Amino acid sequence: MKNYVLTPGPVPVPEFVMLEMAKPIIHHRTEEFEEIFSKATQGLKKVFMTKEEVLILASSGTGAMDAAICNTLSKGDKALVVNGGKFGERWLKICKAYGVDTEEIKVEWGKSVDPSLIKEIIKKDSSIKAILVQASETSTGAEHPIKEIAKLTKNRDDIILIVDGITAVGAFPVEFDKWGIDILIGGSQKAFMMPPGLAFIVLSEKAWEFNKKSNLPKFYLDLNQAHKNSLKKTSPWTPAVTLVIGLNAVLEYFNKIGLDNLFKRHSILSQATTEGFEAIGLENFAKGCTSTALSVIKAPKDIDANLIVKGLKEKYGMIVAGGQDQAKGKIFRITHMGYVDKGDIIAVVAGVEGILCELGYNFKSGAGVARTTQILDKL
Amino acid sequence: MKNYVLTPGPVPVPEFVMLEMAKPIIHHRTEEFEEIFSKATQGLKKVFMTKEEVLILASSGTGAMDAAICNTLSKGDKALVVNGGKFGERWLKICKAYGVDTEEIKVEWGKSVDPSLIKEIIKKDSSIKAILVQASETSTGAEHPIKEIAKLTKNRDDIILIVDGITAVGAFPVEFDKWGIDILIGGSQKAFMMPPGLAFIVLSEKAWEFNKKSNLPKFYLDLNQAHKNSLKKTSPWTPAVTLVIGLNAVLEYFNKIGLDNLFKRHSILSQATTEGFEAIGLENFAKGCTSTALSVIKAPKDIDANLIVKGLKEKYGMIVAGGQDQAKGKIFRITHMGYVDKGDIIAVVAGVEGILCELGYNFKSGAGVARTTQILDKL
Repeated sequence: MKNYVLTPGPVPVPEFVMLEMAKPIIHHRTEEFEEIFSKATQGLKKVFMTKEEVLILASSGTGAMDAAICNTLSKGDKALVVNGGKFGERWLKICKAYGVDTEEIKVEWGKSVDPSLIKEIIKKDSSIKAILVQASETSTGAEHPIKEIAKLTKNRDDIILIVDGITAVGAFPVEFDKWGIDILIGGSQKAFMMPPGLAFIVLSEKAWEFNKKSNLPKFYLDLNQAHKNSLKKTSPWTPAVTLVIGLNAVLEYFNKIGLDNLFKRHSILSQATTEGFEAIGLENFAKGCTSTALSVIKAPKDIDANLIVKGLKEKYGMIVAGGQDQAKGKIFRITHMGYVDKGDIIAVVAGVEGILCELGYNFKSGAGVARTTQILDKL
Repeated sequence: MKNYVLTPGPVPVPEFVMLEMAKPIIHHRTEEFEEIFSKATQGLKKVFMTKEEVLILASSGTGAMDAAICNTLSKGDKALVVNGGKFGERWLKICKAYGVDTEEIKVEWGKSVDPSLIKEIIKKDSSIKAILVQASETSTGAEHPIKEIAKLTKNRDDIILIVDGITAVGAFPVEFDKWGIDILIGGSQKAFMMPPGLAFIVLSEKAWEFNKKSNLPKFYLDLNQAHKNSLKKTSPWTPAVTLVIGLNAVLEYFNKIGLDNLFKRHSILSQATTEGFEAIGLENFAKGCTSTALSVIKAPKDIDANLIVKGLKEKYGMIVAGGQDQAKGKIFRITHMGYVDKGDIIAVVAGVEGILCELGYNFKSGAGVARTTQILDKL
């Protein structure tokens, strides 16, 4: 059966990118590769909306999250962690590994953090050196209000804002320079529509000042090394050559369609998915704060979401993600990132309708697809 | 012009591997991928000659070198570093980053370390917790006597032997279990004939005991996490899916040709290169201790090796590596790892002859190729 990967990472990779990467390998210490590396870096700057150097790491996104901490903080420093899902939890674990103290804002899964809570805490506790947050939490589909949070830290020298934008950058605007974010992280297997294996990270001047004072040990993830080398169009360690070549092809494609259109595409696919499922009585799990990078949909009451995930796979070859931990069996998750288009979205809404029929859910068959199709006309 | 990549990493990747990786992406949290991941792990065990779990990291080889240190040692521990080239130096830098004290054995570039020196030092200084060494030093082409060194540490509980086998594992036998190595590292872009982006690492029981006592902080490179997940056929963080798929294809190919034949191939290509160049008066830089993973050849006196490197590239599209640091302009380096065969080796020997003619070097034209061709008949 033909497979349709519709998970929020890895995402479908365009054939032209796969084939670009399948070309004969080139050596990384050559002008030819330096040109590719440098073009990729320049292209990333646009998507990260920054003048700063965006660093390319040979690692998964977690590598860059780790790097963000060990390159700016010190043992015993305190960080405020927004924890509204699996990736919020990961911030806590990284801090723990490095002996960084944490204060946690627990956010109900599927909700976004209230910036006034953050405002209050960092006003009261001047020892907090960093705020750690996701731009959008992949496990719940919720978008956190980064722009509002950045307003709280932008004019303060003693605190940095570290944003995991892995499921955000490239999908919707996260304006690094304009909003005054201090660290922003992206990953290849998300809106960059690439296979996994590359992470991206950019630091503000303020973050580099923090870097000077950070005493946590690092070598492979030393961002100073990455920065110094990036300015010379290379990386300190052997780069993941083929992935960088693929990235470059993707960034050229982004350039051609335009960043605004790229964001608009995610936004319309998101709206079409949300409203399509609403039309058959299925709610968005992150209602009111949904990220446009993915849709997280609640299964109908009394229906195990995993049966929908399983049914989609077995009946139609469609691979969507289920829920994790407390959301297990309650939700299913569909990507809008990657090489997905209108046809994928109407197919998956239709597919879910097909499975729900089988599971005995009572709804007006076709109503979801009809609504989805209607909205997709905007694209 | 057609390019021939003949550098000791990245190396030529077989087309069937590139095309395998160009197939539609699959999700990593699926039985399908777990099967691939697990098969790759099993295949790696054979090449690493071990019963232990070989861990697959999404990083360059340096990531695994970093992991070897931060997962087994503690701040203030002392390590004995064999430094006979750029990668020996890297051990020193990693130790420094982690506050691990070092005693250095400086080995002349192109020579291999004398195990009796190591024996003496670790006998005298019982505070030494680890010996750090390369199985073969990519910058010089020298092979270090790992088997002999392992004899010194195998029966001691207080010291581990950490071997960077990045330019060794898969090229010649490095018998992890039998010799009693404690940590062995490999990289995808070497004898595994893959693009860069994956590192491999295996730990002995003794090394895992050291791990329990290590207090250096780590998260992304936490090998305990990697180990726990590897036993469940997966990785703690998103794996570099396409590269793992390619690796699996390579390991199947290794299985088909047999490990002994794989080693023999490197060995004959190495001998053919060394003797071919000798026949026209060019010495092997690591004479007497040459690794069969690559050939490092000294340029004739009064000829800048970089002119040979440049000439090969410009005239024939052949990409070989030059020397670094103190060996700059003195040597050129040719891979025997990766998808190279007899045709590549006779071509590059012939190419060098062509360039040397132009550079006015006095030799019997054709003598190198004749000798190389003769030896390659063994293959």
